[in-house]
Amino acid sequence: MTGQQRGEETRSNILEAALGCFAQHGYEATGVAGICKRAGVTKGAFYYHFPSKQAVFLELFNRWLEGIGNQLAEARSEATSVPEGLLRMAGKAQSVFDTTSGQLPMFLEFWTEAQHDPAIRKVIIAPYRRYRDYFSEIIQAGIEEHTLKSVDPDVAAQVMVSLAVGLVLQGVLDPKGADWGKTTRNAIQILLEGLQIK
Amino acid sequence: MTGQQRGEETRSNILEAALGCFAQHGYEATGVAGICKRAGVTKGAFYYHFPSKQAVFLELFNRWLEGIGNQLAEARSEATSVPEGLLRMAGKAQSVFDTTSGQLPMFLEFWTEAQHDPAIRKVIIAPYRRYRDYFSEIIQAGIEEHTLKSVDPDVAAQVMVSLAVGLVLQGVLDPKGADWGKTTRNAIQILLEGLQIK
Repeated sequence: MTGQQRGEETRSNILEAALGCFAQHGYEATGVAGICKRAGVTKGAFYYHFPSKQAVFLELFNRWLEGIGNQLAEARSEATSVPEGLLRMAGKAQSVFDTTSGQLPMFLEFWTEAQHDPAIRKVIIAPYRRYRDYFSEIIQAGIEEHTLKSVDPDVAAQVMVSLAVGLVLQGVLDPKGADWGKTTRNAIQILLEGLQIK
Repeated sequence: MTGQQRGEETRSNILEAALGCFAQHGYEATGVAGICKRAGVTKGAFYYHFPSKQAVFLELFNRWLEGIGNQLAEARSEATSVPEGLLRMAGKAQSVFDTTSGQLPMFLEFWTEAQHDPAIRKVIIAPYRRYRDYFSEIIQAGIEEHTLKSVDPDVAAQVMVSLAVGLVLQGVLDPKGADWGKTTRNAIQILLEGLQIK
């Protein structure tokens, strides 16, 4: 094993250990010492890879978003039209919930703290603004291919993102309150009912 | 002033002081002592009216929900059809945001804590399940008056509630990211586009 491989292994051990600690004890209650112990690394090794606990969290957050982004891109690439793509994206919701439901409480805790810290607030806000642009571009493509009515793409995208945020928050607070995967598909169907050219 | 009137005045002083403390310092960082100081009441008076800080919070939460409920009921009573009622309800969104934006961060903090406390979780979940039933009943009425298509009222209601929850959460985290009142009206218009019989 080269030094670089060892470095990457340590890095991913730290991330995995931090995920476990955050999920089990919450973000606030977790310390760098606890992460090191779980990962089996020294504090020196930790700080070689990450400047702070917050940096570890943000990397986990970005990896989570990247994973969702990949699933959405995959769904879209399998579809031959924008409405079909949106329905396929909604079909990924259950797997997103399944693989990340353990992480959602820590994101919620972090979001709460973000309110009081303008720098962190920016980091949290950036991805959802990015998603708004992403969906706006998709809706624009649907208008151009004549499968969607010529609505304001930004407005429709904002509605989709708000809906997604609401579904995630409710899924965190009330995981058994609904079949969230099915609810997401239904929600997109209702939206498409209004957006689609028949 | 009768003893009862004095009691009610003390009670509302405590609630108002608690609201100020929570908004300024957050829920966790606020103590009963701080609330008493701001309200100008003794701890004895506090505990005569409320068993705990949590009880004060829950009363504020319920009053907030009641205020929103009253606005929605008013909007509905002014309308001659369900679609018009839903649009009027969406029109109240801005004033709900304006009057309560200072309280939203403390609700978010409380929701976060709720995750770890099953008893509190129930209290938080109950109102949104109630709202789901409320909107379900409205959509059912729309189907019966033949202004809405015969969709599954529970599904459509769930979509509306998820959308509302998402709009509120984004409004908390990113108050300047959009015109949230306008976004809410647009969202309901897009939903109605799919739900309404033309």
